[in-house]
Amino acid sequence: MCDSHSGVILISHWNVIMLAGLNFATLLLSVAVCQGSQYKDINSETVSVDQGSTYGSLWPLPQQVSLSEVSFKLSSSSFRVVDAEGSSAGPSCNILQNAYRRYYEYLFGNARKTGHFKRKAARSELSELQVSITSGDSDCDGYPGATSDESYELTVDQPYAILKAPKVWGALRGLETFSQLVYEDEYGAKSINSSKIVDFPRFQHRGILLDTSRHFLPIKVILANLEAMAMNKFNVFHWHIVDDPSFPYLSRTFPQLSQMGAYHPYTHVYTPGDVKMIIEFARLRGIRVVPEFDTPGHTQSWGKGQKDLLTPCYSGSTPSGTFGPVNPILNTTYDFMNLLFKEISEVFPDAYVHLGGDEVDFNCWKSNPDIQKWMDEHGLGKDYAKLESFYIQKLLGIVAATKKGSMIWQEVFDNGVKLPADAVVNVWMGSGLQGEMFNVTAAGFTTILSAPWYLDYISYGQDWQRYYKAEPLDFKGSDAQNKLVIGGEACLWGEFVDSTNLTPRLWPRASAVGERLWSAKDVTDINDAYSRLSKHRCRMVERGIPAEPLFTSFCRHEYKGN
Amino acid sequence: MCDSHSGVILISHWNVIMLAGLNFATLLLSVAVCQGSQYKDINSETVSVDQGSTYGSLWPLPQQVSLSEVSFKLSSSSFRVVDAEGSSAGPSCNILQNAYRRYYEYLFGNARKTGHFKRKAARSELSELQVSITSGDSDCDGYPGATSDESYELTVDQPYAILKAPKVWGALRGLETFSQLVYEDEYGAKSINSSKIVDFPRFQHRGILLDTSRHFLPIKVILANLEAMAMNKFNVFHWHIVDDPSFPYLSRTFPQLSQMGAYHPYTHVYTPGDVKMIIEFARLRGIRVVPEFDTPGHTQSWGKGQKDLLTPCYSGSTPSGTFGPVNPILNTTYDFMNLLFKEISEVFPDAYVHLGGDEVDFNCWKSNPDIQKWMDEHGLGKDYAKLESFYIQKLLGIVAATKKGSMIWQEVFDNGVKLPADAVVNVWMGSGLQGEMFNVTAAGFTTILSAPWYLDYISYGQDWQRYYKAEPLDFKGSDAQNKLVIGGEACLWGEFVDSTNLTPRLWPRASAVGERLWSAKDVTDINDAYSRLSKHRCRMVERGIPAEPLFTSFCRHEYKGN
Repeated sequence: MCDSHSGVILISHWNVIMLAGLNFATLLLSVAVCQGSQYKDINSETVSVDQGSTYGSLWPLPQQVSLSEVSFKLSSSSFRVVDAEGSSAGPSCNILQNAYRRYYEYLFGNARKTGHFKRKAARSELSELQVSITSGDSDCDGYPGATSDESYELTVDQPYAILKAPKVWGALRGLETFSQLVYEDEYGAKSINSSKIVDFPRFQHRGILLDTSRHFLPIKVILANLEAMAMNKFNVFHWHIVDDPSFPYLSRTFPQLSQMGAYHPYTHVYTPGDVKMIIEFARLRGIRVVPEFDTPGHTQSWGKGQKDLLTPCYSGSTPSGTFGPVNPILNTTYDFMNLLFKEISEVFPDAYVHLGGDEVDFNCWKSNPDIQKWMDEHGLGKDYAKLESFYIQKLLGIVAATKKGSMIWQEVFDNGVKLPADAVVNVWMGSGLQGEMFNVTAAGFTTILSAPWYLDYISYGQDWQRYYKAEPLDFKGSDAQNKLVIGGEACLWGEFVDSTNLTPRLWPRASAVGERLWSAKDVTDINDAYSRLSKHRCRMVERGIPAEPLFTSFCRHEYKGN
Repeated sequence: MCDSHSGVILISHWNVIMLAGLNFATLLLSVAVCQGSQYKDINSETVSVDQGSTYGSLWPLPQQVSLSEVSFKLSSSSFRVVDAEGSSAGPSCNILQNAYRRYYEYLFGNARKTGHFKRKAARSELSELQVSITSGDSDCDGYPGATSDESYELTVDQPYAILKAPKVWGALRGLETFSQLVYEDEYGAKSINSSKIVDFPRFQHRGILLDTSRHFLPIKVILANLEAMAMNKFNVFHWHIVDDPSFPYLSRTFPQLSQMGAYHPYTHVYTPGDVKMIIEFARLRGIRVVPEFDTPGHTQSWGKGQKDLLTPCYSGSTPSGTFGPVNPILNTTYDFMNLLFKEISEVFPDAYVHLGGDEVDFNCWKSNPDIQKWMDEHGLGKDYAKLESFYIQKLLGIVAATKKGSMIWQEVFDNGVKLPADAVVNVWMGSGLQGEMFNVTAAGFTTILSAPWYLDYISYGQDWQRYYKAEPLDFKGSDAQNKLVIGGEACLWGEFVDSTNLTPRLWPRASAVGERLWSAKDVTDINDAYSRLSKHRCRMVERGIPAEPLFTSFCRHEYKGN
């Protein structure tokens, strides 16, 4: 007998249990388990039953959580989020003021107005969340960066809740957590339990890669996914902005690149204003925007607007009319890159630029007699990896001169390029993964892991579990090596996604990566995760993000957006 | 060198070539082929380049198409769709009047008003589409059925285009085809080429299965998919309305079924009014609604509102508290089914009801001593397939008494149930498929094929090609047997889809099934299909259906719905 439908527990029913300490003891709730999975012609060992979680709908799970049974109500007409006395951020801090409004909207957006009558807070009411930035410099007017402090402490108790964070970035994460603690009781009253949370990310770099070249993504889609990233405490938008199929970035220096290389020069481009807006929207959510201008391969679209940039391929002794990677033997190539990356360094405030460097096809270089001749003259013989390294080496210098750090795909490291000490190596190949992680960190480079999290590779069933179980430090490195793994990225390459299907394909599958990168290493209970993530995805749906279902289930408020 | 972006040709650029006869000669257009496919760590042999199609964006491809180079323009202010003189359908025919408005909106929805000045049609203008229903009975006030005539002939020439069809159902298909012939020239002017099309479906039954039990689907989602079905000439909505997880059908006779069995008794149910509206919306598009009330398995949700309907399972000698399939040994079971299916026969106008009958688990029946005793008394011994057959046999009688035909999943046939001569067997199992098709048709039953088209089983890449290549008559049957294969269905079971992701997951993957079931058997050119389907999917996007991309590409108007 089962009185909950298909094992799904409404968020309003979650039980809260006083934990003795700040640990992760798993206390299973006495929730009826219903059979809900029916397949046709398939066997599956996937989790399909929500057994409830001690931690309600918290996602990603904070580092330390203590929840009590004592609950307070929140009134939509009187509840306030305010700057605490003594906070180093005040009314002029856009990031916080904007966030207060956003989270009020999430919490009470649907609430009917009941009149702003003056009254004293009821005994069991939480009337305020006080936000205190404790460091002298709140970072309010800055951009989030590679070393930004995202830690916070949240105490919910009467007469008010207190959110303390050294910087605004931690306050943003704490506001999300606060909003996740609020639930509706059985009468629909907004409620929160007395609680104490101490939190900080396990990994500093928690990214999402979106690809706007294979399909153009309207700005609206990018913004919606930045919103979803904030809900999942991601902090890096890795913008794979251009590639072979199209060049949607409108360059002020080289406008012909998008004029000729975009799918359409007006409707399928990102103007400087668009880019600025996306960066500001991300900043307000504590998200870095790291642009990737991938060279020397993946540049077919570049060649349309920039004469002589790409290598002419030969068929025998005559040019075939097709083009290969960027031409590394011409001075004009580096003049062009100099100007382009100077512009990029000014347009994108982040301290890093991603230079790509992956999947360079040598066939065209091999076919070209000028390249051959040049390589002979420079003693490279037939070593095309060295030619690629020659190019990348020069590019790294160009970028360093703009005072930016470089991220690169793993091939650049593998090919033996002499990398700047602050270069970040992005590991994406599934084969030989552990060895690669070992080698990169043994060489002293910081590393970002993407290999287990190529979310464009869809398959039937609950693949979020596979993403959840991937452990970034699952290689035999020393403590010093482990420290160099600064995080990871979920990548949604664009071959098969555009504005029609990107958001539900990314969420909540990327949420699994979000928790792996934020929460403590031992947060691995898949049943507990299923329970929390089911509720978290319904919360995303309620907030307007069409996050797809994990499995047979329902949300109290189904997505109505389409 | 390549001046089209990633090989995608805008619909406005498609060339039209006069075909000598009404055949399917493949005339490749001289369109530059661009390399557009970039993968990370994967090899793929999928089609990725649009080489253009002689047939523009027609989908599914009509049986006979003749296109000329002569083109006409259509004016949004003066173009009219009108009843032809002598048509048996007039202004009171809702189906047509409604369709005229719908297709005008598709064609000119975005057009700016330019004032309705009176003027003569220009020499190269198409001013009218005249629609003529040629049979004495237009079927205007009826429902589409298993034998409805969907044939039509369309002639586009000056001074007007003529669409002739025996019944309104053919006219609906012809209107869709007409709308697919209209394109924008390079100045954005709506244009159409002189053409002659003779068309009819290869298979009568072309269905889409949606499952509203594993996830509730808001009405809006169902209606959007009925719209998309009409765009793809599907004509059966197989509504798998209830199942184990939830019972969203609000029964007037047994309201407690949804009261107790739905995910939520108010927000997650289909009221009689909802059902009526869905049926009418479908009727206006020539789509049948065949409801499936699957028994005796897949009925967990039924048991919540109907006491004693399900078999109590035993653990040793005592009831375990869980329940199995419908209890086949109680008279009350058949009293209940009698009343329920009487209601269903009145609510759903279609001549068929789907009774399910798949995946019955015998363990609970085996555990129950009352079942054992009854089987002994009735000489069934330990043959649970016979017990299942006993139940289904009685149910078939109940349904026959309501003057409805029955569809059933293949197990019912496999178990040797004596089926009525008009029963339709739905083949869904991938293993032993050809043998099953042979056996069912050899036994003289009409058959619907679903096995190759389980669209819930997603995988990376262009899986639409697999669906496209599946051939329903790919078994060694006689001509008489082949004739019994009346069509097929694309099934999107609900475990992993709800309103957040259903529509882009279904389209255009189901479109591949649509062409397989409508077009001639020899329409199998995958490159030609890729070209037409790419444009067809962009057309769906323009019409507000978030159909996902086939591959790296763009649409002139990207989806803005989210």
